[in-house]
Amino acid sequence: MADAAIIPAVNEDESALATPFVKCLLRLVRAQDSYGSWEGKPDPELLADFIVTKQKRREIPIIGDPDPDVLWRLDLYYAAVGLAIEERAGLMASPMMKISHEGFGRVLLTAGRLVVLSKTLRDVHRFGFETLRNLAEAGTKLVDGAIVAIEIYPDAARA
Amino acid sequence: MADAAIIPAVNEDESALATPFVKCLLRLVRAQDSYGSWEGKPDPELLADFIVTKQKRREIPIIGDPDPDVLWRLDLYYAAVGLAIEERAGLMASPMMKISHEGFGRVLLTAGRLVVLSKTLRDVHRFGFETLRNLAEAGTKLVDGAIVAIEIYPDAARA
Repeated sequence: MADAAIIPAVNEDESALATPFVKCLLRLVRAQDSYGSWEGKPDPELLADFIVTKQKRREIPIIGDPDPDVLWRLDLYYAAVGLAIEERAGLMASPMMKISHEGFGRVLLTAGRLVVLSKTLRDVHRFGFETLRNLAEAGTKLVDGAIVAIEIYPDAARA
Repeated sequence: MADAAIIPAVNEDESALATPFVKCLLRLVRAQDSYGSWEGKPDPELLADFIVTKQKRREIPIIGDPDPDVLWRLDLYYAAVGLAIEERAGLMASPMMKISHEGFGRVLLTAGRLVVLSKTLRDVHRFGFETLRNLAEAGTKLVDGAIVAIEIYPDAARA
């Protein structure tokens, strides 16, 4: 019992890394590694920049323009949502994102004629998650929502 | 009969201007006239830049970056499609457009959870129509297609 209390974060990270959503995200991140320079890197390290702890967040200005790196992570995140939807529903879900230079915008994921996800984005320059578990949960929730929509409107999704 | 042969273009323009789609487009163009400087301008003049005749088209380079004016017209054009859909179906159709700086991209119009229009865009720097009639027909065709989609998937469109 004492052990469990001491190392919960490690267990948490391991189960987060095992979720289908995070696996999709890792596949997409590794797919960007054209020169094999990340081959020896462990998974948590590859996702390190997706984690923005409370303290880190406090250090980021409240208003700011998103840099290309954070936009790249945002792209990968929603592409991973699309990929995980595809794995579960067997339907391609393609993302379309539009972000102003100030970090406000919208993302849509569509499958056939169905909008499976629609989300307003703001404060994109501070995009990130408190823990790996939060990352896994947030992504999985978006995938779940899309799957429900596909189940409700199967014809539009297959159109 | 001889008269009809001489002035068909004028009649054509008049009937083009009377279509619901072109009326929507004109409303949106006039809505951008914050200082009232176009108040005295006749409708065909306001749409003049949407008309790119064969000859004008030949003068535009085949490859080119779209300028802000042509992107503005493209925005208005798809916003007018959305507005005309709204008039006919009573559902708000919101456009989302993403264009690369090279003039390639995609536009989506969604109503509720339904994608009522999805179109790949290319050669945006040469966006325009041969005649007012062509403009009216092309826009009306997009509106018609969206209305058909809404009739097929009414629940998704109202979600």
